[in-house]
Amino acid sequence: KVAATLVGNVNKKESKKNKLQVSLKTPKGTKDWADTDMVIREAIFSTLSNLFKKHGGVTIDTPVFELKEILAGKYGEDSKLIYDLKDQGGEICSLRYDLTVPFARYVAMNNIQNIKRYHIAKVYRRDQPAMTKGRMREFYQCDFDVAGSYEIMVPDAEILSILVEGLTSLGINDFKIKLNHRKILDGIFQIAGVKDEDVRKISSAVDKLDKSPWEVVKKEITEEKGQSEETANKIGEYVKLNGSLKEVHDILSKDEAILANEKAMSGLSEIATLITYAEAFQIEDFISFDLSLARGLDYYTGLIYEAVTAASAPPTDASELKKKAKTDDDASAYVGVGSIAAGGRYDNLVNMFAEASGKKSTQIPCIGVSFGVERIFSLIKQRAVAAAAIKPTATQVFVMAFGGGKDWTGYLPERMKVAKQLWEAGIETEYVYKSKANPRKQFDAAEKSGCPLAVILGKEEYLENKLRVKRLGQEFAEDDGELVDADKIVEVVQQKLSEI
Amino acid sequence: KVAATLVGNVNKKESKKNKLQVSLKTPKGTKDWADTDMVIREAIFSTLSNLFKKHGGVTIDTPVFELKEILAGKYGEDSKLIYDLKDQGGEICSLRYDLTVPFARYVAMNNIQNIKRYHIAKVYRRDQPAMTKGRMREFYQCDFDVAGSYEIMVPDAEILSILVEGLTSLGINDFKIKLNHRKILDGIFQIAGVKDEDVRKISSAVDKLDKSPWEVVKKEITEEKGQSEETANKIGEYVKLNGSLKEVHDILSKDEAILANEKAMSGLSEIATLITYAEAFQIEDFISFDLSLARGLDYYTGLIYEAVTAASAPPTDASELKKKAKTDDDASAYVGVGSIAAGGRYDNLVNMFAEASGKKSTQIPCIGVSFGVERIFSLIKQRAVAAAAIKPTATQVFVMAFGGGKDWTGYLPERMKVAKQLWEAGIETEYVYKSKANPRKQFDAAEKSGCPLAVILGKEEYLENKLRVKRLGQEFAEDDGELVDADKIVEVVQQKLSEI
Repeated sequence: KVAATLVGNVNKKESKKNKLQVSLKTPKGTKDWADTDMVIREAIFSTLSNLFKKHGGVTIDTPVFELKEILAGKYGEDSKLIYDLKDQGGEICSLRYDLTVPFARYVAMNNIQNIKRYHIAKVYRRDQPAMTKGRMREFYQCDFDVAGSYEIMVPDAEILSILVEGLTSLGINDFKIKLNHRKILDGIFQIAGVKDEDVRKISSAVDKLDKSPWEVVKKEITEEKGQSEETANKIGEYVKLNGSLKEVHDILSKDEAILANEKAMSGLSEIATLITYAEAFQIEDFISFDLSLARGLDYYTGLIYEAVTAASAPPTDASELKKKAKTDDDASAYVGVGSIAAGGRYDNLVNMFAEASGKKSTQIPCIGVSFGVERIFSLIKQRAVAAAAIKPTATQVFVMAFGGGKDWTGYLPERMKVAKQLWEAGIETEYVYKSKANPRKQFDAAEKSGCPLAVILGKEEYLENKLRVKRLGQEFAEDDGELVDADKIVEVVQQKLSEI
Repeated sequence: KVAATLVGNVNKKESKKNKLQVSLKTPKGTKDWADTDMVIREAIFSTLSNLFKKHGGVTIDTPVFELKEILAGKYGEDSKLIYDLKDQGGEICSLRYDLTVPFARYVAMNNIQNIKRYHIAKVYRRDQPAMTKGRMREFYQCDFDVAGSYEIMVPDAEILSILVEGLTSLGINDFKIKLNHRKILDGIFQIAGVKDEDVRKISSAVDKLDKSPWEVVKKEITEEKGQSEETANKIGEYVKLNGSLKEVHDILSKDEAILANEKAMSGLSEIATLITYAEAFQIEDFISFDLSLARGLDYYTGLIYEAVTAASAPPTDASELKKKAKTDDDASAYVGVGSIAAGGRYDNLVNMFAEASGKKSTQIPCIGVSFGVERIFSLIKQRAVAAAAIKPTATQVFVMAFGGGKDWTGYLPERMKVAKQLWEAGIETEYVYKSKANPRKQFDAAEKSGCPLAVILGKEEYLENKLRVKRLGQEFAEDDGELVDADKIVEVVQQKLSEI
């Protein structure tokens, strides 16, 4: 680890007596974003926010921290991953764990009856990081949620379509949406003989089936969570079912136990409706109805889903690799990317907040989807870099001055004046921060910025009120450019840029 | 205060035994942003990031929290306002207080020799909030900084130009940039007889001159901070000086004590250079050279500046209003907006981090400016709302179905199919989430979204493969629109939208 002494105060006199130790790093599970990574990530944000707007979404922004009590009791076993702020007097606060709970708080607090909102922002989880898999402690979520009372499965189908449109528009086509229904899952647990109060903890055991084989999960259900062998086996029969919406729907529709279970049947009839809408949106082929999907969060009440790709699963020899890992700081060697987008229906969360605040009870059903940008980034980075040489800056024009001799000033204030004219016209413009710079240094700086055009102040030409406009780049090396009137410079530059 | 019982767990069975109290609010000094406020704020971000790109800036993103030791010793008396994270095992972290220190940490950590970077992100200060004045505990900074060794005052002048361009492009023209130079200020303190180790604390007393009269500050300097009456009076003589760069430069150039002080003269010669460049950028008239400006932060080493408007100062009867205030939760009644943008040169900060991490010492001089978005927002909100009726969503097309009779299905899956086609063409499209909706409800929903075009599936027309495209809005009430071939719908809609 890098660690050394830090001058504790900028004042040099004090620094000598007062040295502090400092590690020059970002906190565990976080990183700086810069250069082309930043350009790619911004492009992902832009694609997704355009998608959300395309579906009528409006955006909101909530604080990074919430009152701790707002987050309490929403995340099941994962609550231990919440970052708390130190008690420095005043309110006790925690960093947000997701954007869903703050959204429900916002809807309840402002008595909102319906909204389609999107929110792109950072969330925080004190989890084991796996940085190269895009699993971080500080990461972005890009959420789209629909709140309001609507007909069964209508917003749900659109949210699933948004999931498909989002991933495909980011160039990811080889994904599956694993989908299940909490009511069907609850029905299955009832059928298997799980008591109501045990349902969530058995559900979170089942949720591990994407990482662990059934035998391990079964052991957790029986030994750790006190269910009978028979109950576990019954659960095992159901959770191994998966296939298209239609296939699994048909199997369950012929299952005597399901037919006799009210909860399961209610979920199953919603699935039947969803099939029609999924066909209208042509998204059926992306969906795998998978009864092993449980999702950890407490607040889901209906459809649940997550998008996975080949990279989502851990390597097959994960447990071997884990043993060999030299550090437990980062799990990238032995975990998968996990789900790259996920969500579900949560019909009680807003009302929970409304009642808790003394407002009158109002059911505001909600459903949403969250895209995991860093995980998606880890999948598409390679391709994005290959596809396009990303321009390092937005700079369009480099203002240069060429001259020499004893009386040569370097025309710095003059370059500044020309730059100012171009800025005022909205044109991205730079020049080197040097009174006298030789042509080579100026061309090098322009090349580094990736800009296509130079405006050159020649020592004599400038005195005659003329500026030279020249294309940059290897293929224009022999081209001397065009000499134009100084007062026409903005027009000429705009014209040349429009031709590029 | 709103406070009531919160169901501690979504599971209904458990909820009855396990009720929690919750306040349905955001933490003190924070707020949710939504609706037109959000649209206006996003427009500010967009204006500023375009400005930063116009000057060759690239963007980076650093974590919201840093190791606590990174922030230590950078903020003088204001360090007490830093939010710490709770010690939950592992590293001790704090929320960033500004974007400057993380930037310097980033530059040092990555051995960057030069960069023009911009960063638009939230920072955190446990200060007394004044919400309607845009003074908050969680707020955005929009920073542009230049790191690298360049000729004296060249980047400095461009940063000041960016400050002017930023505010004027946001429609703020009635501002002044108060400007001073730390070397001149340090020289004055030397001349007045302040010991080197007392300079920063006297500086932070002088910094209060924008809020308190000289008599109050003088008392702090003598009684609290142990300086002689004579020293205080000497300081008082200088800090009352202000005027244009040239005026104050000329006064100081004739001052015997200044002429004999090496630090002050070094600062003064930089000001002389700045005057030339400020003329090239035509920004002299915005600048007030004000020797009372000190700025609280420890890390500044050269030019310091802040932009103020008429709303920046507290009301003249502030102390009366403060006494009358019923709550100390919010100071809006008796404080001003404060500075709306500010910054300075900090030449030692990067090297401090470099040396502290055991890297070899490298001087990377830096200068930057930070725009306070919430404060600017509080100034321009009124005007922005008046200037343009802000469209609530980006929606362009509402897909509707009209029909009736016993066999009328409402064409919901059919509307979905049409919406899908439009989405695929990149067109913002909505429809009501209802199987059968009457025309009025569909028109109301379209109007609420603010969208200009309807695509209508008429019961009979749709069977003949025809769709109706109609302009929305009062002035088109009598217009029945145009019947077009269903397979031409995307082209027709694109054409109509391009004509609006």
